[in-house]
Amino acid sequence: MSNDKTAITPTRAQDFPEWYQQVVRAADMAENSETRGCMVIKPWGYGIWELIQQQLDRRFKATGHQNAYFPLLIPLSYLEKEAEHAEGFATECAVVTHHRLEAQKDEVTGKTRMIPTGELAEPYVIRPTSETIIGAAFARWVQSYRDLPLLINQWANVMRWEMRPRLFLRTAEFLWQEGHTAHETMDEAIVETRMIHGLYEEFLRDHLAIPVIPGEKTENERFPGADMTLTVEAMVQDRKAIQAGTSHYLGQNFSKAQDISFTGRDGTIQHAHTTSWGVSTRMIGTLIMAHADDDGLVLPPRVATQQIVITPVTPKEDTRDAVLASCQALASTLRNQSFHGEPLRVHVDTRDINGGVKKWEWIKKGVPVRIEIGPRDIETRKVCLQRRDQAVTAKEFADKEDFIQRAADILQEIHDSLLAKATTFRDENITPCDSIEAFHAHWGQDNPGWLITPWAGSPEQEDELSGQHKISIRCLPLDKQDEPDAPCVLTGVPTRGRAIWGRSY
Amino acid sequence: MSNDKTAITPTRAQDFPEWYQQVVRAADMAENSETRGCMVIKPWGYGIWELIQQQLDRRFKATGHQNAYFPLLIPLSYLEKEAEHAEGFATECAVVTHHRLEAQKDEVTGKTRMIPTGELAEPYVIRPTSETIIGAAFARWVQSYRDLPLLINQWANVMRWEMRPRLFLRTAEFLWQEGHTAHETMDEAIVETRMIHGLYEEFLRDHLAIPVIPGEKTENERFPGADMTLTVEAMVQDRKAIQAGTSHYLGQNFSKAQDISFTGRDGTIQHAHTTSWGVSTRMIGTLIMAHADDDGLVLPPRVATQQIVITPVTPKEDTRDAVLASCQALASTLRNQSFHGEPLRVHVDTRDINGGVKKWEWIKKGVPVRIEIGPRDIETRKVCLQRRDQAVTAKEFADKEDFIQRAADILQEIHDSLLAKATTFRDENITPCDSIEAFHAHWGQDNPGWLITPWAGSPEQEDELSGQHKISIRCLPLDKQDEPDAPCVLTGVPTRGRAIWGRSY
Ligand SMILES: [Zn+2]
Ligand SMILES: [Zn+2]
Repeated sequence: MSNDKTAITPTRAQDFPEWYQQVVRAADMAENSETRGCMVIKPWGYGIWELIQQQLDRRFKATGHQNAYFPLLIPLSYLEKEAEHAEGFATECAVVTHHRLEAQKDEVTGKTRMIPTGELAEPYVIRPTSETIIGAAFARWVQSYRDLPLLINQWANVMRWEMRPRLFLRTAEFLWQEGHTAHETMDEAIVETRMIHGLYEEFLRDHLAIPVIPGEKTENERFPGADMTLTVEAMVQDRKAIQAGTSHYLGQNFSKAQDISFTGRDGTIQHAHTTSWGVSTRMIGTLIMAHADDDGLVLPPRVATQQIVITPVTPKEDTRDAVLASCQALASTLRNQSFHGEPLRVHVDTRDINGGVKKWEWIKKGVPVRIEIGPRDIETRKVCLQRRDQAVTAKEFADKEDFIQRAADILQEIHDSLLAKATTFRDENITPCDSIEAFHAHWGQDNPGWLITPWAGSPEQEDELSGQHKISIRCLPLDKQDEPDAPCVLTGVPTRGRAIWGRSY
Repeated sequence: MSNDKTAITPTRAQDFPEWYQQVVRAADMAENSETRGCMVIKPWGYGIWELIQQQLDRRFKATGHQNAYFPLLIPLSYLEKEAEHAEGFATECAVVTHHRLEAQKDEVTGKTRMIPTGELAEPYVIRPTSETIIGAAFARWVQSYRDLPLLINQWANVMRWEMRPRLFLRTAEFLWQEGHTAHETMDEAIVETRMIHGLYEEFLRDHLAIPVIPGEKTENERFPGADMTLTVEAMVQDRKAIQAGTSHYLGQNFSKAQDISFTGRDGTIQHAHTTSWGVSTRMIGTLIMAHADDDGLVLPPRVATQQIVITPVTPKEDTRDAVLASCQALASTLRNQSFHGEPLRVHVDTRDINGGVKKWEWIKKGVPVRIEIGPRDIETRKVCLQRRDQAVTAKEFADKEDFIQRAADILQEIHDSLLAKATTFRDENITPCDSIEAFHAHWGQDNPGWLITPWAGSPEQEDELSGQHKISIRCLPLDKQDEPDAPCVLTGVPTRGRAIWGRSY
């Protein structure tokens, strides 16, 4: 492949959405299925999810949460109890209405068709999220303040009927974790909401190399039924925003609708304060759009299914066994090294196919480090080292012992360079804006970045501005709510708060 | 609690099914929900599932399988392609027919009700198992013999509408793993089917302390669409059988229905040979019924959420801190020990509640080892050690250092003693039977054990015998198919094969 060709066609600059599809396909991560809006997550994509799961799960447990599992199907009556919540999800609910099939012979075609029968008296929806069904369980479990806090997490599939699905980013069915907690006081619930918000920010930064803006959603953008929604917003390479994780303080809205009540320290009956929070397989879409390039996927090392792939170069039959043995020995040695407390994940690609094909396959799959070992390298005790965060043509002939010592450090360097690059890109593409003329003009550009403005408008004014330009307030960034007074970009009313505006997935 | 009282009422002897419910409740493992036939798996129960998952997953990966994820919803047209399979699951399918809800005000009550709208042109069923949808993906993935074998596993929820649900053992929704593989030849597919069958047997024995009978299902009892079904059958304490895991050779039935075809080594187009295999949360029900006693759950150590619980005994305020510190120090030391390659799971129960209440709680939760440390024990460097596989009143005052050294061995001893007890019970309750009179008489007993008989009857004869006594052939045990010729218990035809009959869950 010559230097001006790229492994992925089209490039990001040519057609970003199509580039994204092609990266997913070239890395063999996922594909569409015949189930409307649902994807098949293939092993290379699912392996990333398994690592995200393990690493997040450890953090949740270390902060006192326990996993449990609640029913997939939610009785309609549960949804009816919290009207705002129900309305928020009503247009995207898959509804189960029957519980049997009956074979019927089609008189025209002669084929047997399966027809739904056994109509249910009360239909169920497939959970779009589980506040209502977990709330019903909490109502049974909580009697006294001594039963609080309840700190529960669930790993599950959920379904939100999607009209415009996109692999990982927006699919009808997706995999996620949903935390649900109940507390004695508002203060404790807010501490939990913020703690998880911080955990998500840190996880995205330290595990996925994605720098996010932590902030609060405006009333318009809140989770249906929440009093406060905190979000971590990522900027991807077409400068759109992706809401990568949210953490909600639900106040007493759900606890009153579902009667999660308890006898307090003072003997009075009180309603619990609840929270919920989640991240999903959408994080995989986010990391692709944040880091991949025109040659394919670029994996942050901590969530790379394989961190190091070793390819034996075996031009001659008589040195073949020695080269293979040397590669396997190196792999074993590396697997005894650790990176962030986990053994290195190392793969030796022994397939009997063209070396160039192999090399490009691992590039497109985003493996952080590629190593080649040939017959001469055995004598010189060298390895040929290539890094996915560097140009495809870049290589280093490293002393083998030295590479073994440095392997974990190299992975950390790759993580750091991905994070630094993404941070620079993000910071260059958030522009302060204090004039409404500049504001309006900004959104006429191709792939506009984000604007940060003083903002004191009403929800209606926010809606109107958003509608005009197909944008939204991504968040009120946490560290920018106590700025010097400045006039709101729309109303001119002085405010210390700032809002970030952008297009989003 | 005096010696003749038990923590669980009723006892196994008094009412086994009700005893089972009470064990699950007393251990706080799971509860029923308002979703018909579906349970909530609480943290103590879910923790067992997480351990089963981790340990099995490691085995699947070590034998070359990769995880992936496929859609929850299966188009009806997929089921229609394999008629036998579709009919096998038709009476227990949850069907999704709508994809929206609309709020409607009830004119009588004034309440808002959510009504299903947005009818789907083609309904979907919630997967009762995924042969059809995974087969459709395999058809896309397999072109050449070089693409084989495909070795895929999925961890997922599935749904089979149940009219008589029972926590863990039979619920409408359950959690499981389903392996799906495609191979070039029949021989390879059968090797895979048998390898997994052996893996399940070993897992149940070495991880859950459950001795199972490995065998083949008769044609009547096969998985719908399979050419061969292998099963591992466990006997529980009411002498009923539980099918704890199955492994199916599907022949070319699914590959022909779904066109999983490939160009073979000889250039001809061939259909793949496929397998599927699974175990589910039903294993948790099996382990409860196999090991629990009249004082509650008894956990095999490898899947115990907590293996050792340390309770500080703090009668006086002035020694309290020293006792707590001693307990925490012991816990830390133990956590650095390992059992089967995993750090010991140790919990210190510092709750400020009555010591007797604590003790009985951990007994009912089935924790393998309980340790108490009081002020005097600190001076003498002793611990009070109690084991869940011994009488509740049994205790040993062990030297602390000695206990630390022995901890992992003690857990192994507990595993071994549970396995030995279950094996003896099983062997005492499988009776050879060669007369049809004795056969008929046997099933009139309360809680009859299993019979093993020479068998050469037809499927129709098997059905008739089974129907008469509400029994079934649990399996044709693998190691009993080459016995000396003996007359079939029903037909008198000489046969070298043997069948095991029993009642089952
Ligand atoms: Zn209430
Ligand atoms: Zn075909």
